[in-house]
Amino acid sequence: MTSLFQNLFQKKVSGGKIKDYSEMPTIEGMEISAVSAGLYNSKRDDVCLFYFKDGAIFSGVYTKSSTRSVCIDWNIKANKKNIKALLVNTRNANAFTGKQGLDSIIELSKLFISTRKIKEKEILFASTGVIGQPFPLQKIKSVVPELIEKLKRPIKLSWIKQALAIITTDTFAKMSCAVVQSSSDFINIAGIAKGAGMIAPNMATMFGFIFTDVKISQTVLNQMLKRNVENTFNAITVDSDTSTNDMVLLFSTQKAKNREIKDINSPAAKKFEKALNEVMLDLAKQVVLDGEGAKKFITVNVTGASNNNSAKEVAMSIANSPLVKTAAAGSDPNWGRILMAIGKTNEKVKKEKIEIKIGDFLITKYGMIAPSYNEEKVKNYMLGDNILFDVNLNLGKGKFTAYTCDFNAEYIAINADYRS
Amino acid sequence: MTSLFQNLFQKKVSGGKIKDYSEMPTIEGMEISAVSAGLYNSKRDDVCLFYFKDGAIFSGVYTKSSTRSVCIDWNIKANKKNIKALLVNTRNANAFTGKQGLDSIIELSKLFISTRKIKEKEILFASTGVIGQPFPLQKIKSVVPELIEKLKRPIKLSWIKQALAIITTDTFAKMSCAVVQSSSDFINIAGIAKGAGMIAPNMATMFGFIFTDVKISQTVLNQMLKRNVENTFNAITVDSDTSTNDMVLLFSTQKAKNREIKDINSPAAKKFEKALNEVMLDLAKQVVLDGEGAKKFITVNVTGASNNNSAKEVAMSIANSPLVKTAAAGSDPNWGRILMAIGKTNEKVKKEKIEIKIGDFLITKYGMIAPSYNEEKVKNYMLGDNILFDVNLNLGKGKFTAYTCDFNAEYIAINADYRS
Repeated sequence: MTSLFQNLFQKKVSGGKIKDYSEMPTIEGMEISAVSAGLYNSKRDDVCLFYFKDGAIFSGVYTKSSTRSVCIDWNIKANKKNIKALLVNTRNANAFTGKQGLDSIIELSKLFISTRKIKEKEILFASTGVIGQPFPLQKIKSVVPELIEKLKRPIKLSWIKQALAIITTDTFAKMSCAVVQSSSDFINIAGIAKGAGMIAPNMATMFGFIFTDVKISQTVLNQMLKRNVENTFNAITVDSDTSTNDMVLLFSTQKAKNREIKDINSPAAKKFEKALNEVMLDLAKQVVLDGEGAKKFITVNVTGASNNNSAKEVAMSIANSPLVKTAAAGSDPNWGRILMAIGKTNEKVKKEKIEIKIGDFLITKYGMIAPSYNEEKVKNYMLGDNILFDVNLNLGKGKFTAYTCDFNAEYIAINADYRS
Repeated sequence: MTSLFQNLFQKKVSGGKIKDYSEMPTIEGMEISAVSAGLYNSKRDDVCLFYFKDGAIFSGVYTKSSTRSVCIDWNIKANKKNIKALLVNTRNANAFTGKQGLDSIIELSKLFISTRKIKEKEILFASTGVIGQPFPLQKIKSVVPELIEKLKRPIKLSWIKQALAIITTDTFAKMSCAVVQSSSDFINIAGIAKGAGMIAPNMATMFGFIFTDVKISQTVLNQMLKRNVENTFNAITVDSDTSTNDMVLLFSTQKAKNREIKDINSPAAKKFEKALNEVMLDLAKQVVLDGEGAKKFITVNVTGASNNNSAKEVAMSIANSPLVKTAAAGSDPNWGRILMAIGKTNEKVKKEKIEIKIGDFLITKYGMIAPSYNEEKVKNYMLGDNILFDVNLNLGKGKFTAYTCDFNAEYIAINADYRS
């Protein structure tokens, strides 16, 4: 399985439920569990634990928000090696919770320290939910023994439960995986994600958690996460808003039998990185696909920019434009709005060089509408669920692909009415 | 009349029509006319002319879009003194129209050159409408004689007709005016605007046209327009999108009997500038009030930023956030979203210093929710039509006030369905 996204896409747009998670692998050295702490006043699982008996190395990428959650401050200070646990809760973001928020995770960490002989810097936290509400320490604390008791190994069939325990307003569990053949054995990669909005209503978070058993150096792990986040999780947008809690964490238990990857340019590294990128992109696309109210998946492909950064700025400007996204919702080939979104960036475009395609249809060339343009045909294309906006600025070699969804009345309904 | 906005606000939110335009003044040396060129296949006025028999000096501020309309390229090259005419059309933006677009305005300018002895660089153009469609030269050309024939003076009662001729999806005409007493006489200021979206559906433009008879130097006129645009037309946002055609033009016929204003720091300059700012702010607020689908007017007041630029970045981040705007639509005091919007800027905020008020209600202080916070009361306040978000970052003296509207299902309906 390289892309659950393709599979999901078919099912989501036809209204079906996602069933195919049987290929998710076991990651040696890892145990997982999920329980309900009653945070939603229901029995749904809302707290979960990822446990690495012999430790794991990890790398993290976090929201750049300056009002970020205390979890992120905590994780940044954690050890990079020998991580033993990641505890995730929903319903409360532990952001803007002051001293009570920090004291709470200190107290939770102590529970693990005393029962599992873990050090303070060997445990990570991730929270998603309402900002500024007191952290529900007692409820979460009371289920930690149960979480530890329920830890499962092998984990193959428990992924779905885990993926469901981290979501908020998501409509399906987001999972992806890959298997890479090494010289001596197989390397497994498994990931789960949580989305719903770029930030969901006031459930404010995107999470990406990726686990592998690859033997790899800390340095290469860091490099790989950093550069593969750029064209996956950092290439998607639902509503241009940035969460206080976003994080992508990549763990390796180092249990596979491959020769340790120490050089990011080695053939083994490249092979692994390709699979890692596929898993991350697949998860990222699933987040967009489940964007609040989303009915259409939109790919914005920008080439010919003066450099890759400019290409990203242009692609994100198009992908974030409410006018482009509402036009998509209405299946309206309103390409003037794409042009507007290009124009508002810092890229020094030349009008007469811009080529815009919608799907395979050429829209503009030489600074004006293409003679072959046929609105009826393009409109027909845009009635579909999977839309490509392809922009060639013809200035240089910069390129970037962004992913987004349409912007429709359902987004408004979800976000205006959420808490009432 | 200093603020038609207040008046409009009462009428708009109670569903009434705007009637009070009787105070709009005559600007000596200026004539106006509006006719229908059938651009909408209806009889509504869609082309209008502003004519300065003895010339006017002017200053312009234009969209920063790199895919801007050919009108803007044209106007930038025009003379600054002795401007004789401004021709405005709706329905077609003359953007991305290639050679045909430029040739069209050259041909229109020739009509004026031959019949009115105007030079090419003494005429300005403003277009708003669909991007990328061939410019309707013949239709507009055919009504120029009628426009010239219908020029009216005094213009006092013709403003409403003119203001209605420049709108597209706006629901009311936007006008404002002021009278300033000088040592020897009165100075008049009259302005009209067009909005509907920051850019309207694919009617892509905000216009602000302000006319005065003040005797003033070109230098001071330029300085005044530039600095007063910052906290008026550049302080509003409907949907964060930037048009290819936005422009604000300030004309002076120099017919008033005041002593020429040559120093922007003189008392006479300050008195005039205050009135000019009021007119510009009034028009800008009317544009927001008429934002597509807008039901609520939102003021975002940021103080205590490290500098004014940072304050503007924070204010616009809040004002542009779809999540903040949808929360406003739902009258939901979801202040975590305000915090999120603050956090995603470059301002180096200190969480524990941020004070947020909604109306007069203190929401956060010392990095957590204020003990006095009462959600019921704040929700009740947010049910109103006029909402204030007040943020003090307590870092420095930077401040900025932005204006926006809520984001609701009607915006989506207008923009998704517009062209079909």
